[in-house]
Amino acid sequence: MSLLVTGSIGIDTVTTPYGCVENVLGGSAVYFAFAATQYVPVRLVAVVGDDFPNDFRRVLESRDVDLAGLEVRKGSNTFRWTGRFVGNMNEAETVDVDLNVLAEEAPKVPPSFADSKTVFLANTHPTLQREVLAQLDSPDLAVCDSMDIWITTERESLLETLRMVTGVIVNDGEARKLTDRVNLIEAGEAILDLGPKFAMIKKGEHGSLLVTNDGAFALPAYPTKLVRDPTGAGDSFAGGVLGYLTEQGKQDTDTLRRAMVRGTVASSFAIEDFSLRKVQNVRRREINHRIDELVNMLRFD
Amino acid sequence: MSLLVTGSIGIDTVTTPYGCVENVLGGSAVYFAFAATQYVPVRLVAVVGDDFPNDFRRVLESRDVDLAGLEVRKGSNTFRWTGRFVGNMNEAETVDVDLNVLAEEAPKVPPSFADSKTVFLANTHPTLQREVLAQLDSPDLAVCDSMDIWITTERESLLETLRMVTGVIVNDGEARKLTDRVNLIEAGEAILDLGPKFAMIKKGEHGSLLVTNDGAFALPAYPTKLVRDPTGAGDSFAGGVLGYLTEQGKQDTDTLRRAMVRGTVASSFAIEDFSLRKVQNVRRREINHRIDELVNMLRFD
Repeated sequence: MSLLVTGSIGIDTVTTPYGCVENVLGGSAVYFAFAATQYVPVRLVAVVGDDFPNDFRRVLESRDVDLAGLEVRKGSNTFRWTGRFVGNMNEAETVDVDLNVLAEEAPKVPPSFADSKTVFLANTHPTLQREVLAQLDSPDLAVCDSMDIWITTERESLLETLRMVTGVIVNDGEARKLTDRVNLIEAGEAILDLGPKFAMIKKGEHGSLLVTNDGAFALPAYPTKLVRDPTGAGDSFAGGVLGYLTEQGKQDTDTLRRAMVRGTVASSFAIEDFSLRKVQNVRRREINHRIDELVNMLRFD
Repeated sequence: MSLLVTGSIGIDTVTTPYGCVENVLGGSAVYFAFAATQYVPVRLVAVVGDDFPNDFRRVLESRDVDLAGLEVRKGSNTFRWTGRFVGNMNEAETVDVDLNVLAEEAPKVPPSFADSKTVFLANTHPTLQREVLAQLDSPDLAVCDSMDIWITTERESLLETLRMVTGVIVNDGEARKLTDRVNLIEAGEAILDLGPKFAMIKKGEHGSLLVTNDGAFALPAYPTKLVRDPTGAGDSFAGGVLGYLTEQGKQDTDTLRRAMVRGTVASSFAIEDFSLRKVQNVRRREINHRIDELVNMLRFD
């Protein structure tokens, strides 16, 4: 029941066709943690600058998140991201990015976290992902994300990381770029050839695809008109998936399929409003209701 | 149990990353008929030129297709389409098109077809679609397709057709263009406001979406690596849907959802090989097996 996530904590400014928010709490580890704590407690390993607002810290403290691994680095600034979503909002455009503290040394895993059994390595430099893994005793399940820039510029390092993880959660463009395959099932199988036991491929409004040695399993997105801000959808998906897998203590294909339903529902809440506005207040009851809706929509006998 | 389809019969030349076929049998009515006859007999209303090969006629005769409505027009040439699919093969590029006989007068509905209870109006000029409808006594279910060019240049006529049909089966781009909505559920609801009781929106490799007054229902595509030629996928989908609905004699939301599963499976066979190569030989047993696979992939309890 010990789930560790390492990833970014950011201060985001986001514009979508539905409005704009400035200097709000964001980052992969944050969205992940809000989704995963619906299932299990989360141990956070991340670094912020000493400009990190106390209000944001309190938002994190409001959940079952162990902040022992949250380093506040003196004299540094927190990661900032300014982005926008246009048209069908399927992809973010980065308007401005200040890596700040993320460009410095990675945060350390506190000794009290070393026994974590499940770990999610959100998108970052693949060498840093391995450094975190190396500080853990013997996780049962290690899953990583990645992105274009590492696939292109740090391919060898990323391949080394892939040899060490149990699973991968990436989006369709990343899966294609990583494997040079257009067909997503072929891309997923090519990822399995690189080491992982499963590949979950996120397709935004088009749902997701799981590829394991048992085959390929597709799932549509939760059908919704309420899409105000897709920021954090992918990390919320991963949070729902890993939270559920940790709670279940299993990682067979059937459990992975059910985890994908939880990830789908987690992201459906994340996109309903800007920043954490919706996920901050969503109750487990609402989550369960939406899981039932999705499962019933897909029941044909 | 009487299903009428009107649409094109064509001689296709198609190039995809997997090869090229020249002068093969194609056209919306043909793909539709091959999928629908897995469920019920089909009445065909279409026109070809006197260059239409006897071999192609025999292919149509090999199925339970009533050719009383197939007009062979003397002195005219059959519709010809040359197209290609590149990259992810999600959209056809038309390289060359000769409307030939399709640019002339529409074929007449034979009196023996006037009592048809179900009708599919494949993509053509919306005025011609209404002319066919007007020749039928009282269909229980009339469904139409359309495409960009009519949405743009014949909007008023298309809106008149939409007021007369029960349902619409279009692709995502067409639904968005028709309704000026980006979100596909909103697009589907906007289609319902135009008259139809249901909108089925095809998303290629991403599956399909059904919108009725009961809500929105998403379905993934059948996950397959076997995609050699997407020609006819959409019309095969419609054929599976209308064939099943005609067989069932119902059109409630649950039956529409199940029909969408049949459409999905029909298109999964169509894209496996060039032209009709696969669908010509597929057995009902294989179809049922694939339906079971899809339904089981989506079962979560």
